[in-house]
Amino acid sequence: MTTVYLDHVATNPVDKRVVEAMLPYLSENFGNPSALYEQGRIAVQALDKARKQIADLINAKPEEIIFTSCGTESNNFALRGLANANLKKGKHIITSAIEHFSILHPLKTLEKEGFKVTQIPVDNNGIVKFDELKKAITPETTLISITHASNEIGTLEPIAELVKLAKEKGVLVHVDAVQAAGVIPVDVQALGLDALSLAANQFYGPKGIAALYLKKGTRILPYLEGGIQEGGKRSGTENVAGIVGMGKAAELAKSEMSERTAHLKKLQKKLIDGLKAKVPTFHLTGQPEQRLPNHVSGCVEFIEGESMSMFLDMEGISVSTGSACVSKALKASHVLLAVGVAREMVNGSIVFSFGKDTSEADIDYLLEKFPPIVERLQAMSPLKKG
Amino acid sequence: MTTVYLDHVATNPVDKRVVEAMLPYLSENFGNPSALYEQGRIAVQALDKARKQIADLINAKPEEIIFTSCGTESNNFALRGLANANLKKGKHIITSAIEHFSILHPLKTLEKEGFKVTQIPVDNNGIVKFDELKKAITPETTLISITHASNEIGTLEPIAELVKLAKEKGVLVHVDAVQAAGVIPVDVQALGLDALSLAANQFYGPKGIAALYLKKGTRILPYLEGGIQEGGKRSGTENVAGIVGMGKAAELAKSEMSERTAHLKKLQKKLIDGLKAKVPTFHLTGQPEQRLPNHVSGCVEFIEGESMSMFLDMEGISVSTGSACVSKALKASHVLLAVGVAREMVNGSIVFSFGKDTSEADIDYLLEKFPPIVERLQAMSPLKKG
Repeated sequence: MTTVYLDHVATNPVDKRVVEAMLPYLSENFGNPSALYEQGRIAVQALDKARKQIADLINAKPEEIIFTSCGTESNNFALRGLANANLKKGKHIITSAIEHFSILHPLKTLEKEGFKVTQIPVDNNGIVKFDELKKAITPETTLISITHASNEIGTLEPIAELVKLAKEKGVLVHVDAVQAAGVIPVDVQALGLDALSLAANQFYGPKGIAALYLKKGTRILPYLEGGIQEGGKRSGTENVAGIVGMGKAAELAKSEMSERTAHLKKLQKKLIDGLKAKVPTFHLTGQPEQRLPNHVSGCVEFIEGESMSMFLDMEGISVSTGSACVSKALKASHVLLAVGVAREMVNGSIVFSFGKDTSEADIDYLLEKFPPIVERLQAMSPLKKG
Repeated sequence: MTTVYLDHVATNPVDKRVVEAMLPYLSENFGNPSALYEQGRIAVQALDKARKQIADLINAKPEEIIFTSCGTESNNFALRGLANANLKKGKHIITSAIEHFSILHPLKTLEKEGFKVTQIPVDNNGIVKFDELKKAITPETTLISITHASNEIGTLEPIAELVKLAKEKGVLVHVDAVQAAGVIPVDVQALGLDALSLAANQFYGPKGIAALYLKKGTRILPYLEGGIQEGGKRSGTENVAGIVGMGKAAELAKSEMSERTAHLKKLQKKLIDGLKAKVPTFHLTGQPEQRLPNHVSGCVEFIEGESMSMFLDMEGISVSTGSACVSKALKASHVLLAVGVAREMVNGSIVFSFGKDTSEADIDYLLEKFPPIVERLQAMSPLKKG
């Protein structure tokens, strides 16, 4: 059967070159980096190299990279760690209305612990409302956490502007760049960020390994305690093979980014144009231009995302209806509600996300199979007005 | 060069059969288990299978296994999660004086947050003092966390007895079995445990994946928040390849345990006898009989563990001087002090730990190289009395 994988926001295949780089660390080079003998030193060298490769991807210093186990851990760690390390200034945190649950849930817990959290609304394109953000900052505000790009609508936030404002007020900024890092250029120094989350599986590295960039000198409380790994900031025996894989994936993402982006933008335009022409009831969500190049999202009138996804699956096409992390919860997306999608249409959401190995033929195949599925579902829909 | 790896408490090589099982999940089966389409279902099946393999290893139910990223995370999660989920009963936690830092450090943090922590002393063999434990339990005690076997001295704690006492008083019991699970038989039902930490790399699985057993119905607060993975108890995209590897490693550990144990015990006896005969200044630490079968630890008079380790490294022999997680901190071991090793001898600690692929020839090689190293170092030592 034809199989076309169009859910790169959920995860990406691991690049063959990445697996190759990892294999020695799943066999002969098995040492624990904390050990003082030869095997330990080999592991330390591998960590050092990977740390530099990842730092290079986002223009950080190697010592500013802390390895974690997933984007969710990076986000939880950043929020809890930064909030609790800066209690002297205050207990107010600002975020946006379209964050991933790995931001929103730990913030809810922090609220229960006495922190105040303000969620800034977004416009219909998903751009955080700058004036509202400005008004929300108080002398007690310690941290702003904003997504670089939402996995549901693909909109790229104007991070540089937001950081400029935050810095004027002496507020730390954390960016959830899990969807962006490794896909689009991210320069933590140019942006002036204090912390940034990135995950290997979003740029063809393995699952189970991610990182938190933390600007040198920024105080944070550790999340996992018990050893002296990662400068005491994240204890636990290092996932050496995973880290090596993430490093290699970062190196490839950096060196191949411009050609990957050109390819992705071509596919993106082809898909948006094709959907406009063939599925008039598909309404693009997110900023039409200022968005992830591997991302096309929208809502289709009168039908459910789950149904579309299941019918596409039968044709060998994998897509998601929103965030993978909650896809099985089947709740109306807070992100789509925040950008003003009508509640009747929220459940008709679908996200097509593609990658460096997606071909034009894959998009053609989707554009052949998707329109009849939509028609068939709409014909059966009790919501569609005659 | 001959290379003899005798630091299996730090980490283990990954079994070839484990790597083979993992590879498909680093290539064609790359789906996110949260996805609803075919690739997601393949990933879910892989997680289900691994969860059953791991549950079988410790006689748990599959739904009682929560995947984490390392033993440190399992320990942190268990302590913080159980302590904070049982505030109504009280804020008193009991542990022992010979725990790993991934137990002691989060407990220190909990103390800062208002919990009371009691550390129970051990006897000279490292066995937790039962009477002291009995006296320490109060109506406010919610949790006892005890190591199954310390990585520094190898002593096996009488867990069943401790649990019996705790259950009489309605106290939850967590066991740090990172060193024990997969090496010796561990039966969570027979022991009556509420929670138990285990790590894949301690039984020939990969680094970066571990688990927490949590008895069905036991309340715990999540450690990583943001998704519905692991029943909402541990969010984050699953490390599918790592989980598959841990599952396979658990299956092999179970099916091969009796032959592995027989082999390890033979090596252990050979090494203890050899050291007694050839290194009279070596003093065994830990319980001589009731200990991990892969573990021989001791202190050598007048010299430093680091020096022995470095000279052995030059002969191609890898050993540790204590816990890998803090080996670079070079502090006197709290575990050795707790079992009553004199402060002058604490720094002469050395741990030989071996595995299923260690041969008798490896032990012979160690017994050939080690005694002259000790003699040479002692001859240079300013501590040695003429």
